[in-house]
Amino acid sequence: MRKVGVVGSGSSNFTKEEIPVETLLLESTKQVFDTTRNLSQNLIDGVIVSTNDNSKYLSAILSELTGIKPKIAHTVEHLCSSGSNAVISAYSYIASGLADVILVSGADKINNPGQVLEWDKTRGEFNHPIFWGSMLTKSHKRKFNTNDEELAIVSAKNHKQAIDNPNAYSHKSHTISEIMNSKSITDDLRILDCSYPCSGSTSVLLASENMASKFSDQPVWISGIGQKTNSASFAKNDLTELTTSVIASRDAYKMAKTSASNIDVAEIHDAFTVCELMAVKDLGFSESVSGADYVRNLFNTENRKINPRGGLIGAGHPLGATGVAQIMEITLQLQNKAKKRQIDGAKKGLIHNMSAAATSSTVLILES
Amino acid sequence: MRKVGVVGSGSSNFTKEEIPVETLLLESTKQVFDTTRNLSQNLIDGVIVSTNDNSKYLSAILSELTGIKPKIAHTVEHLCSSGSNAVISAYSYIASGLADVILVSGADKINNPGQVLEWDKTRGEFNHPIFWGSMLTKSHKRKFNTNDEELAIVSAKNHKQAIDNPNAYSHKSHTISEIMNSKSITDDLRILDCSYPCSGSTSVLLASENMASKFSDQPVWISGIGQKTNSASFAKNDLTELTTSVIASRDAYKMAKTSASNIDVAEIHDAFTVCELMAVKDLGFSESVSGADYVRNLFNTENRKINPRGGLIGAGHPLGATGVAQIMEITLQLQNKAKKRQIDGAKKGLIHNMSAAATSSTVLILES
Repeated sequence: MRKVGVVGSGSSNFTKEEIPVETLLLESTKQVFDTTRNLSQNLIDGVIVSTNDNSKYLSAILSELTGIKPKIAHTVEHLCSSGSNAVISAYSYIASGLADVILVSGADKINNPGQVLEWDKTRGEFNHPIFWGSMLTKSHKRKFNTNDEELAIVSAKNHKQAIDNPNAYSHKSHTISEIMNSKSITDDLRILDCSYPCSGSTSVLLASENMASKFSDQPVWISGIGQKTNSASFAKNDLTELTTSVIASRDAYKMAKTSASNIDVAEIHDAFTVCELMAVKDLGFSESVSGADYVRNLFNTENRKINPRGGLIGAGHPLGATGVAQIMEITLQLQNKAKKRQIDGAKKGLIHNMSAAATSSTVLILES
Repeated sequence: MRKVGVVGSGSSNFTKEEIPVETLLLESTKQVFDTTRNLSQNLIDGVIVSTNDNSKYLSAILSELTGIKPKIAHTVEHLCSSGSNAVISAYSYIASGLADVILVSGADKINNPGQVLEWDKTRGEFNHPIFWGSMLTKSHKRKFNTNDEELAIVSAKNHKQAIDNPNAYSHKSHTISEIMNSKSITDDLRILDCSYPCSGSTSVLLASENMASKFSDQPVWISGIGQKTNSASFAKNDLTELTTSVIASRDAYKMAKTSASNIDVAEIHDAFTVCELMAVKDLGFSESVSGADYVRNLFNTENRKINPRGGLIGAGHPLGATGVAQIMEITLQLQNKAKKRQIDGAKKGLIHNMSAAATSSTVLILES
């Protein structure tokens, strides 16, 4: 299989403004052109758009707006993990030899579809993501005696880390007490336990090994890929494990011939605070099963290893952009370009992106 | 690059009934399971849905409905060529080594979005496909002196051929005179010059070379791929050439080391009658530039080489299913399983699928 590297990236701000999806896609793509040396339209073999927007033909629209005339062009949708799915699709086009250079542009605007899965009737009228977030939280509390302070620490850490992310939705730190006393949404969730839907776009440029050095002295290689979809509806027994994430990470580590102990920095899908506690355990970072001590230690030592850009809770969650934004952050970290957010000497990173109560998960390993 | 073969297929009827897209997807997928030996859910690495439907997470929904728990799962959209784009994406996952077996299921229901590209304002309020069909027809008439009878022959041939396709939308033959006297839609188009939007689904199963023999004694190999997107809006100068189809076919022939003269059977994107005249020239089948004599000769000799299942005009055009249905037909032809539609001794076939007035085209070469 041919090696595939991330050689460029760009992002819009993540904001509550209603911005047309075409405008968002154009903004992050323009940044890729502005910041990637030697990049010209005729070198791009593919344009893949990742979104939940109902507009059609967006990859052709983005191509026309930017003057690209690609071979490969289509939209990829898989709810909140559309972005990482689009990047893996681009990886496969390049690894197979069908393409050398592909632009992946993810975007959604606030209030776009994709949050509520209309098809899933297993929860009756309780179909907003807040309800599965709440069920996971209640189950975690029951099994691991997790308390509200432990959940609040995730939010406090990620809001704090987002302050150094210029594209983040939130630029305000919150004390643990503020978070614990923020508006109650359900029995188990406060408003500051939740990630924010918002408008935003992030793009990355992928290239084959033979083309990568044209665009960057520091390509970041995709060395591990794991994906799993178990179902579409939220009807599983064990609500205290992200089963698809366990499977996806196992496959990604195997492909990259590595393990959690070798990962220097990770972007984790903290749709709700409990998701980060579950993920640090299920991805193999935390030795304790609740994940709470692991995150508390990161917070107390100001270690940004998990979600340096602020996660979904701090940076915001423009669905189709999120997976791409996670990949951009890990790329910048491994290129030593993450400025105030930089993890010193990071050589190996992980991305964890999931959909619909972890009925699907994607895990990627990136290496400098 | 690893070889990739089509090893199974299935299709719903194409109908004007309003059938939910999940039901359609399930129907064609069930046929793949019913007709493919040794196929079990746990052998399927990927489920890719091709559609213009606004529902989200359809690949996870189809997976849950069928008991598949795939690694790769997402939706692909690129208007009328979503189907061939999804198959090429599946090809790349397998060719790269990320997967061995992928199900591609295409479906749209009648009145789904995807016909009108809202973004394209270049034609003002004239945004229905009928208007670009009409502009191409007027230009063809002007340049090649094409007459209404020559256009009607395309429709007569494809309606006639569709009679032997049990899944086709139309099962009625029409005389050339009936077609020429059918209801006028624009100055240059009658109702029987047009393909019909409808509900329908077709699925194909793709496998790597090492897995293909498990499922079929007659895998059909994808040997050539060409794709091109030039723009999203309909603003080009020469309306008498399908420029993206010319480029896509050139690349597909090159990859397959073949040429039009070696193709035994072809599925061509006859959204309107003029499209078939243009395509037989632009894909290299017709030596005369107008294409009209070539199609007239096929009609007079009852040669089914072009659009044996009836094309979009005879079989119907359920957008996301069309490209997959074209691939199913060529697969059956190369397996000598096309029954009354069979082209004797067909060894090499071509698929031509396009979007939005040929602003995008895909061409595939298949070989037995």
